[in-house]
Amino acid sequence: MRGRRRCSLSSADPVHDASDVGLLAPGWAGSAVEAATGDRAFLQAMLDAEAALTRALGAPATVRAEVEAAAHADHFDARDLAVRAREGGNPVIPLVAGLTAAVGDEAAAWVHRGATSQDILDTALMLTSWRARTHILADLDATAEALARLAARHRATPMPGRTLTQHAVPTTFGLKAAGWRQQIVHARDRLAALALPAQLGGAAGTLAALDGRVDLLGAYARETGLAEPPLPWHVLRTPIAELGSALALAGGALGKVAADVLVLSRTEIAEVAEAAGGGSSAMPHKANPVRATLIAAAARQLPQLAATLLGSLPAEDERPAGAWHAEWQPLREALRLTGGAAHAAAELAAGLRVDEARMREHLDLSGGLIASERLVAELAPVVGRGRARELLTHASRTAAAGRLPLADAVAEQLADAHFTEHPELRGRFDAGRIRKLLDPIDYLGAAPELTDRALHVTAPPNSPSSRDSA
Amino acid sequence: MRGRRRCSLSSADPVHDASDVGLLAPGWAGSAVEAATGDRAFLQAMLDAEAALTRALGAPATVRAEVEAAAHADHFDARDLAVRAREGGNPVIPLVAGLTAAVGDEAAAWVHRGATSQDILDTALMLTSWRARTHILADLDATAEALARLAARHRATPMPGRTLTQHAVPTTFGLKAAGWRQQIVHARDRLAALALPAQLGGAAGTLAALDGRVDLLGAYARETGLAEPPLPWHVLRTPIAELGSALALAGGALGKVAADVLVLSRTEIAEVAEAAGGGSSAMPHKANPVRATLIAAAARQLPQLAATLLGSLPAEDERPAGAWHAEWQPLREALRLTGGAAHAAAELAAGLRVDEARMREHLDLSGGLIASERLVAELAPVVGRGRARELLTHASRTAAAGRLPLADAVAEQLADAHFTEHPELRGRFDAGRIRKLLDPIDYLGAAPELTDRALHVTAPPNSPSSRDSA
Amino acid sequence: MRGRRRCSLSSADPVHDASDVGLLAPGWAGSAVEAATGDRAFLQAMLDAEAALTRALGAPATVRAEVEAAAHADHFDARDLAVRAREGGNPVIPLVAGLTAAVGDEAAAWVHRGATSQDILDTALMLTSWRARTHILADLDATAEALARLAARHRATPMPGRTLTQHAVPTTFGLKAAGWRQQIVHARDRLAALALPAQLGGAAGTLAALDGRVDLLGAYARETGLAEPPLPWHVLRTPIAELGSALALAGGALGKVAADVLVLSRTEIAEVAEAAGGGSSAMPHKANPVRATLIAAAARQLPQLAATLLGSLPAEDERPAGAWHAEWQPLREALRLTGGAAHAAAELAAGLRVDEARMREHLDLSGGLIASERLVAELAPVVGRGRARELLTHASRTAAAGRLPLADAVAEQLADAHFTEHPELRGRFDAGRIRKLLDPIDYLGAAPELTDRALHVTAPPNSPSSRDSA
Amino acid sequence: MRGRRRCSLSSADPVHDASDVGLLAPGWAGSAVEAATGDRAFLQAMLDAEAALTRALGAPATVRAEVEAAAHADHFDARDLAVRAREGGNPVIPLVAGLTAAVGDEAAAWVHRGATSQDILDTALMLTSWRARTHILADLDATAEALARLAARHRATPMPGRTLTQHAVPTTFGLKAAGWRQQIVHARDRLAALALPAQLGGAAGTLAALDGRVDLLGAYARETGLAEPPLPWHVLRTPIAELGSALALAGGALGKVAADVLVLSRTEIAEVAEAAGGGSSAMPHKANPVRATLIAAAARQLPQLAATLLGSLPAEDERPAGAWHAEWQPLREALRLTGGAAHAAAELAAGLRVDEARMREHLDLSGGLIASERLVAELAPVVGRGRARELLTHASRTAAAGRLPLADAVAEQLADAHFTEHPELRGRFDAGRIRKLLDPIDYLGAAPELTDRALHVTAPPNSPSSRDSA
Repeated sequence: MRGRRRCSLSSADPVHDASDVGLLAPGWAGSAVEAATGDRAFLQAMLDAEAALTRALGAPATVRAEVEAAAHADHFDARDLAVRAREGGNPVIPLVAGLTAAVGDEAAAWVHRGATSQDILDTALMLTSWRARTHILADLDATAEALARLAARHRATPMPGRTLTQHAVPTTFGLKAAGWRQQIVHARDRLAALALPAQLGGAAGTLAALDGRVDLLGAYARETGLAEPPLPWHVLRTPIAELGSALALAGGALGKVAADVLVLSRTEIAEVAEAAGGGSSAMPHKANPVRATLIAAAARQLPQLAATLLGSLPAEDERPAGAWHAEWQPLREALRLTGGAAHAAAELAAGLRVDEARMREHLDLSGGLIASERLVAELAPVVGRGRARELLTHASRTAAAGRLPLADAVAEQLADAHFTEHPELRGRFDAGRIRKLLDPIDYLGAAPELTDRALHVTAPPNSPSSRDSA
Repeated sequence: MRGRRRCSLSSADPVHDASDVGLLAPGWAGSAVEAATGDRAFLQAMLDAEAALTRALGAPATVRAEVEAAAHADHFDARDLAVRAREGGNPVIPLVAGLTAAVGDEAAAWVHRGATSQDILDTALMLTSWRARTHILADLDATAEALARLAARHRATPMPGRTLTQHAVPTTFGLKAAGWRQQIVHARDRLAALALPAQLGGAAGTLAALDGRVDLLGAYARETGLAEPPLPWHVLRTPIAELGSALALAGGALGKVAADVLVLSRTEIAEVAEAAGGGSSAMPHKANPVRATLIAAAARQLPQLAATLLGSLPAEDERPAGAWHAEWQPLREALRLTGGAAHAAAELAAGLRVDEARMREHLDLSGGLIASERLVAELAPVVGRGRARELLTHASRTAAAGRLPLADAVAEQLADAHFTEHPELRGRFDAGRIRKLLDPIDYLGAAPELTDRALHVTAPPNSPSSRDSA
Repeated sequence: MRGRRRCSLSSADPVHDASDVGLLAPGWAGSAVEAATGDRAFLQAMLDAEAALTRALGAPATVRAEVEAAAHADHFDARDLAVRAREGGNPVIPLVAGLTAAVGDEAAAWVHRGATSQDILDTALMLTSWRARTHILADLDATAEALARLAARHRATPMPGRTLTQHAVPTTFGLKAAGWRQQIVHARDRLAALALPAQLGGAAGTLAALDGRVDLLGAYARETGLAEPPLPWHVLRTPIAELGSALALAGGALGKVAADVLVLSRTEIAEVAEAAGGGSSAMPHKANPVRATLIAAAARQLPQLAATLLGSLPAEDERPAGAWHAEWQPLREALRLTGGAAHAAAELAAGLRVDEARMREHLDLSGGLIASERLVAELAPVVGRGRARELLTHASRTAAAGRLPLADAVAEQLADAHFTEHPELRGRFDAGRIRKLLDPIDYLGAAPELTDRALHVTAPPNSPSSRDSA
Repeated sequence: MRGRRRCSLSSADPVHDASDVGLLAPGWAGSAVEAATGDRAFLQAMLDAEAALTRALGAPATVRAEVEAAAHADHFDARDLAVRAREGGNPVIPLVAGLTAAVGDEAAAWVHRGATSQDILDTALMLTSWRARTHILADLDATAEALARLAARHRATPMPGRTLTQHAVPTTFGLKAAGWRQQIVHARDRLAALALPAQLGGAAGTLAALDGRVDLLGAYARETGLAEPPLPWHVLRTPIAELGSALALAGGALGKVAADVLVLSRTEIAEVAEAAGGGSSAMPHKANPVRATLIAAAARQLPQLAATLLGSLPAEDERPAGAWHAEWQPLREALRLTGGAAHAAAELAAGLRVDEARMREHLDLSGGLIASERLVAELAPVVGRGRARELLTHASRTAAAGRLPLADAVAEQLADAHFTEHPELRGRFDAGRIRKLLDPIDYLGAAPELTDRALHVTAPPNSPSSRDSA
């Protein structure tokens, strides 16, 4: 069982071709989540699951010690297990053979006792998820904190609100950042709240080979550090499906930040910039929003991975032929993409450069039209909404033609014969007042207050990220 | 604004071609959820959202009364709105024009005041979701109750546990039904726990046209009967994404029931049958598991609908150009598919026929091999696991050849020279004891106890299904 | 069987709640594809399939005439069929009952003879797809033609090429439009090339109830105007899966146009604009890129619909319990979304306004850096690529600080001591030459030639859009 | 640039955690496609792309030789590149730095000349896809051949046709296998027909840094062995999207085989069995349909991977920020899942054991009802379809009660008073004739002829699998 072969990139080694080291995954290569979910980590998680079983069963101390000593990933050849997994459809079968062979006869009798492959593999999936989640939560927390700082600092920093790609009315950068944060905090809490249960049930989930000892559900959970399930969940895949959805939710919340940063980083907009943009192999002047790009790429993949996991819920019988096997890689990839995205987001949020002057400048791009909603609202009670809009349309054409500033053009329109029936307008709407009504800085609504509200309503929940997973 | 045109299937009416009445959706046609989510119901929900806005703004009582009187779906032509929606990309623009025209000048000034189209459409989506959820929860509850009865009745009814399509070890039908129920109850609770928030924020979510009144978030929520959001959520789409995932989770939980019923209904298995199977246009003898089929079809579609909704989370700016519009139909279809599936499941569970005799009979199909795990476990400590399995393999070949019953073949093997070194075996493993060890009825493990556990651990949560949505 | 009830939006009619008229689907409401795929059209397609069967079977002329006369959607109540479909899981069962009842005894004996529900429903799906495809292809053709005109007109219209949101090097609008067109033409050809086969096989696809007459595959295909399948394809769902993929491919090709138009329409960029933008319910000045928005929304939904259809390929047995039923609505929605998007794209392309001056202006936004790749390429052979990039970096900082124009700053750098070892530089790289090398207009590469190439390589294929479908 | 670090599973090596060796992917671990798509193979493909560029550009022979000598994966540390890829968002940037450093100054000036990272990465994706496709096509061919043999051998082997899980009418195993094959051959041809184009365009696809030489599109294609694209396709992602769909189509076609094998392998059905079933870690008697399970698992994942790839079609600008990066891993995983499934299917088909006796036996399970469709068809013209079905229903109840065989029960019914008005029945429908009409063996329809038809219509196309890729 010893891993005789350990080299994976040398040309003489037939293994090398099969070894992935993250070359196509800049989104998570080198991240903490990658290490927590790699094949070696997963191998260790399976061995941890086996060792925990021996403890939960109450094996003699010498047996437990012997199994624990043997249950180290270093003693196994992950590649060999991977290739042999094909025969029975999962890697636990050769793993158990190896672990059994690695210990003495007494201990061998305790190894995998009463368990089925799925008990070990599912428990390892949950252990791996737990460990990966710890990193993800930490990065989501760091992102949320950095965004809270940004939001507080910019609670009243005006910028154009944009809808359907067009300037709409002003907003503040603080409100935008507060919204980013709120959604991330929500996703984080949902991910943190998921119970990641140990799996133990034996061949058909009846605990028959475990002498029907229902108490083992709790004992095994304690030994693994995972949650105790109400039932063996071999074919009740809620934990996996919910985890997939929660990861996609977190990825989507991060993807919202990325989507906005990508827009605001555009050469023509340039209201924000990543602290250090990525270079280009061809163009010396480029500073690309690389972190936002990698987050966006993750957010594009996660929903479909979640769909695959949700699609495995209708798992027939006491172990489905395919639905179970279809969960493993998508779950891992979902953990990695979310973890990589959270890490990139923490960096992005910590270093984001905000160009307040550009934001201010853009508010004037439409010559005051960005606040015209307000002017219409003021005029509407007097002349009717339709007519107020019409007036603005005419005035903005005059302004666009360059003949007059918008406020003056509006004043001219109001002085027009059409409005003689409303003499009260003249006093209330002189050019000065109109100018003020069209001032975007004066039309931020409750953006600063909403920012405050968002920063204060979300209390930090009791976080599993601070717990240790045994 | 009066709906002059109301006929939709007459041949002279060009509208008819555009009207869907559920012809391709037997999964939900005729269901309560269908009615709650149809275009007329959605139209009413948008009008409800407009009327609630007038109330939340504190319009004079006469204005409120006038708007409420006008805000009835009967007064509008849904088809006309649908076609005119194309111009601006949503149906609220023509709806507001119509509602404004339908009331007097004073009331007209209050209609849609300070709101943006998305406020109304999102609020209507949530109202519709709330109303549909009420039906879904009721059917999930009914399903869970029927399954609880089935589980209790059959807590100790033995049947083959099947893994990877093959008989594995025995289980009970009660445990299976208890698992079905547990997953449905969990999905139901998750769906019920979702806050469905009202939407109000104005053009860019700053409440600017609403005088920056943050208190309106709560007031509007109260008037609609929906939850108060922490922030306007125009581009914080968690409520939609989570709803989609929760519906897919529920659909998947129901899909698990369907998957099992479909297997167990097979002509060769026939351990269960739907109360009244569907007929065939060609074959008189067929009684198809139609409800399970329709549930399975829903469960196949829901994950991808959830993916589309999760994929809309990265919504750029203050209103995205496409991501928002891509939510409407998938969300509605998800509500319908889940609602139709829940309704079918309630019927299925209430009427499921369980053939205990067939189950019992199938346990003997393998001539005792189904409990051979136990025999191996008993022999392993004495002769080693490998040798025990080998022995069983030989014995089962002898049995398969028809020469001897399995127990006798095992006894013969044990009496064989190979085992002379283990004289203690002979006493403990005579044919009688072997027969007992191979008796599937005696090898149910904790299936009955697990059934009890599952039926008692899940306390009924405070259910929003009992609340009224205004 | 007569459709007594035909009204669907009147308030007294319980049916109305169930009727959808496109209110949530501005992407396709009112389109030709909508009409071709509505429930009434589908009902007619099923009746066409039944009538064609009678012809293919060689029923007496009087019988054929009688069946054809009865087989009109006007005579049936689609809603009634929809609700009754639930019992057997498909609408063909009640439809056949109705059609049989509507004709005399002799004709009744010919109705649905030898067929199974799936024969009729699948054939109707293909007829509907065929009819919808005709509209889709026409709109894709119109889009491609308009884009060809745009591309030809702007083959040498320079604009910034943008990568990862940043200005990269110049390109031309013509090349962009030519790329849009090429992808659309490819997707169109693939969609047009799909064989949409008739379905006939009887209960298990053996033609047993059709006296084993294999010739009926061809005869039925001829009578329906559809393609002849190699085999009955009840559980060989390639035609549906490929259609779904081809629709998603077309939707994605249109989505590329939309994605670019949305970027280029942004207030700060404004290089293109839709002919007539959509209005806003709140802001008078807005002209939204509504068509691009609706196309983008379609492109977001189509991949997941295609996934559902691809997911139905593993259809067990001779008719799957769920996989088949899960195809109907997603296929229809895919047809509609693609059709609506194609129609919107044809309008968008025909009316797109291109602002050449803005494009030109934006090329100067980076003060010449957009062509710096060229300068680096010229300098690299002399001073090495690393050093050339370094030089540009310094010069661009000087330029950004406003002290000198970029070309002069480069010349200054070159005159610097660092480069005294390369005296040959001085002659070749004076400020004039540098200015020319940094001129974006002079650095279009093969953009115009590639535009020509793209416009000429794609020959118009033999198009099924010109054929008539019976 | 030399790969100093080559060991990947030793515990002291921090790299080990990041290395995947297929542990969670029994579906493709150890397969030829895995080796063709691993990180080392991909690294080599990128280097091949760089070397081909030097050739296409017409570099001096010595330069070409030097670059080719340097362009070996053994000289690079894939892990190091993977980690450094994060900075710029793709691995080509560090790769080019390494390759440039590894050659002399003259050659360095030719390395990556005029190209952008995407040129190299996309070309490497296509090279990898080409190489993987060769293996996939070979396995699809092998599968199709084995299925052709099965189909021919069993063209007239009767078995129950099953619809919606219930016995419907008889079919033959040959027809089933012929259908499997037909769909696989179709998917194979579609995959083989895809043009996998080289990518070359420079920073924005204008060939500007390549002196606008359009001829390089062809030259580069020739040097790589890939197809010549009509245009640089940096943002025209049809090749990727179509490849994804074609792989999902192939996976689905294989998934249909798996779905049927899984049903027919069930303990209660056991009409087929895999040559060597997978073992169980707990139950000695089990022989699981492991290959079908792994194929089914692949078929569950592929549609969503295809959706992600289709979802990247709307790629904004001249290089999208996220959509491109979201393609790499899903495309590779799609190649692997399809390749692994095709390989498993070839083994499955070659070794499938067909139990004709069980099939025959099952045809009698319903006591003749499986052919009752025919009896109804014969009776209908005389007594009407409704009455014929009614008669069968009564008779089958009598038969089910065990009082009489079905044929006799039918005869009894016919002799009943109800039918005295049809004296002609008595002569034509005596018990002997009825028995014959109910004989399933006599009711195979055209199953054998359809089998022949399917085996002969599909001519082997000109296959790219026989071409060599460079």
